[in-house]
Amino acid sequence: MRPTSRARRSSAHDGPIDLRSDTVTQPTKQMRAAMAAAEVGDDVLDRDPTMRELEIRVAGLLGAADALWTPSGSMGNLIALMHHLDRGDSFLAPTGAHVLDNELGTAAWLAGGMPRPLEHDAGPGKVSPSAVRRAATGDAPYHALRTTLLCLENTHNSAGGMVTAPDEHAAVVAAARGAKLKVHLDGARLWHAAVALGVPPGALTVGVDTVQVCLSKGLGAPVGSVVAGSVEFVANARRLRKMLGGGVRQGGVLAAAGLVALERIDRLAEDHDRARTLAAGLRERGWQVAVPQTNIVLVAVADLTGTLQRFEAAGVRAVPMAGQVRLMTHADLTDADIATALRRIGPVDGTTGHADAHRAPARPARR
Amino acid sequence: MRPTSRARRSSAHDGPIDLRSDTVTQPTKQMRAAMAAAEVGDDVLDRDPTMRELEIRVAGLLGAADALWTPSGSMGNLIALMHHLDRGDSFLAPTGAHVLDNELGTAAWLAGGMPRPLEHDAGPGKVSPSAVRRAATGDAPYHALRTTLLCLENTHNSAGGMVTAPDEHAAVVAAARGAKLKVHLDGARLWHAAVALGVPPGALTVGVDTVQVCLSKGLGAPVGSVVAGSVEFVANARRLRKMLGGGVRQGGVLAAAGLVALERIDRLAEDHDRARTLAAGLRERGWQVAVPQTNIVLVAVADLTGTLQRFEAAGVRAVPMAGQVRLMTHADLTDADIATALRRIGPVDGTTGHADAHRAPARPARR
Amino acid sequence: MRPTSRARRSSAHDGPIDLRSDTVTQPTKQMRAAMAAAEVGDDVLDRDPTMRELEIRVAGLLGAADALWTPSGSMGNLIALMHHLDRGDSFLAPTGAHVLDNELGTAAWLAGGMPRPLEHDAGPGKVSPSAVRRAATGDAPYHALRTTLLCLENTHNSAGGMVTAPDEHAAVVAAARGAKLKVHLDGARLWHAAVALGVPPGALTVGVDTVQVCLSKGLGAPVGSVVAGSVEFVANARRLRKMLGGGVRQGGVLAAAGLVALERIDRLAEDHDRARTLAAGLRERGWQVAVPQTNIVLVAVADLTGTLQRFEAAGVRAVPMAGQVRLMTHADLTDADIATALRRIGPVDGTTGHADAHRAPARPARR
Amino acid sequence: MRPTSRARRSSAHDGPIDLRSDTVTQPTKQMRAAMAAAEVGDDVLDRDPTMRELEIRVAGLLGAADALWTPSGSMGNLIALMHHLDRGDSFLAPTGAHVLDNELGTAAWLAGGMPRPLEHDAGPGKVSPSAVRRAATGDAPYHALRTTLLCLENTHNSAGGMVTAPDEHAAVVAAARGAKLKVHLDGARLWHAAVALGVPPGALTVGVDTVQVCLSKGLGAPVGSVVAGSVEFVANARRLRKMLGGGVRQGGVLAAAGLVALERIDRLAEDHDRARTLAAGLRERGWQVAVPQTNIVLVAVADLTGTLQRFEAAGVRAVPMAGQVRLMTHADLTDADIATALRRIGPVDGTTGHADAHRAPARPARR
Repeated sequence: MRPTSRARRSSAHDGPIDLRSDTVTQPTKQMRAAMAAAEVGDDVLDRDPTMRELEIRVAGLLGAADALWTPSGSMGNLIALMHHLDRGDSFLAPTGAHVLDNELGTAAWLAGGMPRPLEHDAGPGKVSPSAVRRAATGDAPYHALRTTLLCLENTHNSAGGMVTAPDEHAAVVAAARGAKLKVHLDGARLWHAAVALGVPPGALTVGVDTVQVCLSKGLGAPVGSVVAGSVEFVANARRLRKMLGGGVRQGGVLAAAGLVALERIDRLAEDHDRARTLAAGLRERGWQVAVPQTNIVLVAVADLTGTLQRFEAAGVRAVPMAGQVRLMTHADLTDADIATALRRIGPVDGTTGHADAHRAPARPARR
Repeated sequence: MRPTSRARRSSAHDGPIDLRSDTVTQPTKQMRAAMAAAEVGDDVLDRDPTMRELEIRVAGLLGAADALWTPSGSMGNLIALMHHLDRGDSFLAPTGAHVLDNELGTAAWLAGGMPRPLEHDAGPGKVSPSAVRRAATGDAPYHALRTTLLCLENTHNSAGGMVTAPDEHAAVVAAARGAKLKVHLDGARLWHAAVALGVPPGALTVGVDTVQVCLSKGLGAPVGSVVAGSVEFVANARRLRKMLGGGVRQGGVLAAAGLVALERIDRLAEDHDRARTLAAGLRERGWQVAVPQTNIVLVAVADLTGTLQRFEAAGVRAVPMAGQVRLMTHADLTDADIATALRRIGPVDGTTGHADAHRAPARPARR
Repeated sequence: MRPTSRARRSSAHDGPIDLRSDTVTQPTKQMRAAMAAAEVGDDVLDRDPTMRELEIRVAGLLGAADALWTPSGSMGNLIALMHHLDRGDSFLAPTGAHVLDNELGTAAWLAGGMPRPLEHDAGPGKVSPSAVRRAATGDAPYHALRTTLLCLENTHNSAGGMVTAPDEHAAVVAAARGAKLKVHLDGARLWHAAVALGVPPGALTVGVDTVQVCLSKGLGAPVGSVVAGSVEFVANARRLRKMLGGGVRQGGVLAAAGLVALERIDRLAEDHDRARTLAAGLRERGWQVAVPQTNIVLVAVADLTGTLQRFEAAGVRAVPMAGQVRLMTHADLTDADIATALRRIGPVDGTTGHADAHRAPARPARR
Repeated sequence: MRPTSRARRSSAHDGPIDLRSDTVTQPTKQMRAAMAAAEVGDDVLDRDPTMRELEIRVAGLLGAADALWTPSGSMGNLIALMHHLDRGDSFLAPTGAHVLDNELGTAAWLAGGMPRPLEHDAGPGKVSPSAVRRAATGDAPYHALRTTLLCLENTHNSAGGMVTAPDEHAAVVAAARGAKLKVHLDGARLWHAAVALGVPPGALTVGVDTVQVCLSKGLGAPVGSVVAGSVEFVANARRLRKMLGGGVRQGGVLAAAGLVALERIDRLAEDHDRARTLAAGLRERGWQVAVPQTNIVLVAVADLTGTLQRFEAAGVRAVPMAGQVRLMTHADLTDADIATALRRIGPVDGTTGHADAHRAPARPARR
């Protein structure tokens, strides 16, 4: 296990260990200093210089021509879908994708797309090229839905932070291209995939039209995401962002923290290590849990609500995800926190745990 | 086989046998006479008396408090979904449902619902009560989709006109109610289900909030559907219909044909007989086809496009549905037409038919 | 006064004289016969031959490349606006236009346009070329509304059926073109304008992108409108009509009545004559009323609700429009009906009529 | 003239004087320090403590039960309108209101309202109670727009920062209430109105359902607005904000700056003083300009584009507003900046200035 990159929060052992999400992380001192010192301007009128620096930096990391800051990943995804979809279009996405289940239906009612969920036929979180080809409508008649977009998600959150490798990514994107589909990549945790695979983030965006990445999850920035694509896309995205109320003024104060966050990509390896430690410890204690690929641990249980309550009472905070308990590691945790969490959770018992866990779905249920 | 209820069209044996849909039927002489004689008024201002008579008759047949004529079944379904759904709601429907795949995404972008397709876990075209219970969200947190509606479809078109029986219907509706879901029934071919089961249509609408039935499919009216529900629903539906541009003036001319069409419900048994004859004949000729429950015959083939072209060239018109060839019987066909169609189709061969048909999906693919 | 073109309805003298709208007209015997005899087909799948004949006929009359039947004028207008407008666009229309005030806001929430009402600076119902030029935004910045469309209305209903002449029309369309605006013409009563001006309808559509005309108002068809434009527009309009639920099957039964209705354009001169007779009679009785140009008579009154009730009680039905009483002549009225209506209305008195009518707006208020 | 509350920016005399908007202000040192020190949490999951403190403080200032931070004033207004409006509703707003002209039509296409602009019949930026009563539809028939909301704007931006006093506000709100309208107040510069009138902000929100105030305009915070109303409204607003992508994580870093900004309300008197000085200086130089009530100076010119270019070339930045040149004072200006700006602008001449300015609209044109 690697050394911890930042000081432990003093409250960790006494208070609850918060494994609900990597969004709970506090901004670092360096981020706070950067925010206080940021050079800023009116981004609506002139473009804020620090936001612009962040956008250009992220575009470079992602191999995109340009990029745009958004207040949230949801808005970044929404803008991309609004750009790609017309009324009467449908789009493909793996079941359980964030754009399907966790963005309040905006892909449908606001971006205008009828979703066609695809089963994870190429492994958890992954769809096969042939499934994409089969689902594409091609030249549909005038009165039929036209499938025009494929949404990918890497890592795939509800499947347990599962990683799609560059060759898998390239194959499914090629299938989409061959079927005349545009491709949007929800890369809220693309950084994790890149670190887990040991490749640069740009290796995972090859061929996509647009990609969204979050600064406020594993990287720990307080607020913000970035959506990237062509120059034409970003010009339209800026207009769409204004429509949605996401155009801000001196946003450089947030972008400054985002620039610091970008320096923390390699640190994600620690989160992955801790997730594996957590998963191994849980298995030793009898829980049914797969080997995590990144920072998400899914625990299959018979009584979901009961288990979450038991964890909470013991001082370990978690959330439900795809019918399972989701535990997520992040920058504000230490090795000691993981050990504490395991001790607090303790061994499985018959009422909550895996005695009945064969009833849990083999692949992530939609929710 | 029962006697044919109307004269054969002279062109049947020479021209193509049209098995694409029961929507192709011509209005009968009786319908035409009724249209010519209809008492009518300005339905937008005053309600047209013949439309009103039709609406009240259909409401009675369906056990509903009131009903409203619409120009199409798509509009009837759309009005119901607009009534039931708010932005950020999701709704459940069996995969392949008409509201998911055949209404240009209006359930999503116009009614505002994010769909959650349910697998046919209770047989083709049918979902189990437990699947409904599992998929319901209950009291979701503020930032989550709320599942608020279940859409059923009886008969289920893309599953091959499959019938849901009253007890099955009642069980799934009870599950929905228990999960605080509203229920809309797409009954475009509810008449077929009622005839196949030998029950009144009202036995298949128990517990639903709204139901839509078509007059222009098996019943043969030229234009029109009816959506039914509570008095409050119909008052709002009338406003929604006006929004969508479906408020018409002297619509009684169409409603008069609809009233005649309602006298033809029992005749559907002929269509079901002919579908069984057609399916049996195809099986004898080596095609892979299930026993139809109503008027829809699905043929699993290896080469969908090629088979459709071969049928067309031979003088039999069909359409693709759920990755299979769909053949549909209707009022403008005779026993002789079925025999002619079978002769024209002939035996399966290796290039189009079932030699490779094990590759066809076991249950209807989504399309 | 010309002879009446059809038999008086027997109830006219005894029952109320219905001057609410020309939409109340009954289909003629010839229409009913045509409906009963119409050649029809499945318009969704194949295009109904009689609908197609109607569409081509109307396209020819309007000088358009193609046309599409819709169940209502509201749907025709809505389809045109959905075609022309994107989210974040604004459109210009004279105050009181039907698309602004009488279509349940669909121009806004469904077609996506923010309206910018224009005052009638070129006379009642008419806007000047310079007003259009001033209101156009040209190349707006990314964060600003872009005005992309001008909606005209000829005759302009709420302004009292006012007519725009070909030269006025051409000038305002040229101004719109110069400002890079597309132009849609709501011609629900374009026939009336053509007859009043003694020009063919096509003289009033020069330069527009799209135009909607009604068959169910002055022309007396029971149901239907037609929207016309380029071949590309009509192809998209057909898809949009299907989305809205306006795609019908054997619609030729209605189109057949529409074809008969097109033979009745010249008859509108009778309605205009009767409107002038009605207006003159009202002025003689002390009412404040302008000289009508077509079939609409607006009466300025101090007490709108009271006057409408008084008329109703006396056996004359009218509606409020733009803060005034609207009386409309139509095909189901005779000269005797007008005389009866005038006798029933009688002289103005101080409580309802024009004693206070100087308080009425000089130009139509928005409603 | 009062002493300047913060140090002049060194670039003021050399670089352009930026009078485009008060949104261009830089965060103060105190704001930057507050951001660096803010106590924060995950606002989506737990509510961020500093955001909550800000929300409660603003709710108190506005006399509202609760409040919610939003990334922009546009989002705050949009959330309020989405909450109040249903499809088919219309809303009233004074011509030139920000929700009509400056929010990319979202009031229409996204919130679903058809706007009915009201003329400023009670003075610039103000509508009379009787105009509101006349425009309300009351119990409209099923097929008519229903006016359900009045949107006010205080100060009214495009009318030149005009102030509505408490008694005027109360009268128009009472009229709206009497007509069963809800009331939303766009208070992006409500602070300016309160300071100009010498009343607490809460005196200007009496009777409204919802109100939006900006922290990033006159008060100088880098990012953020607050929308306030009932507890029920704020609960729904939080969901709507998440839909739009405005839910953020550790937003307390921005809220901390907002709390500092709230201490700067009284400072706005300086901006008002400087606007008056600027207006007086311009009048002395022959420009046609009204006496400003707050921080906005509108200059009527014959050649809008030419004048803006001339100003820009001379080192004074301005924007077009309602067909006039808008100059706005703000916290980053000094008395010396105003003197410099006047010297750079210089006297009017015939080509750009008021020689033809009688052609300028007497009241703000819509744009």
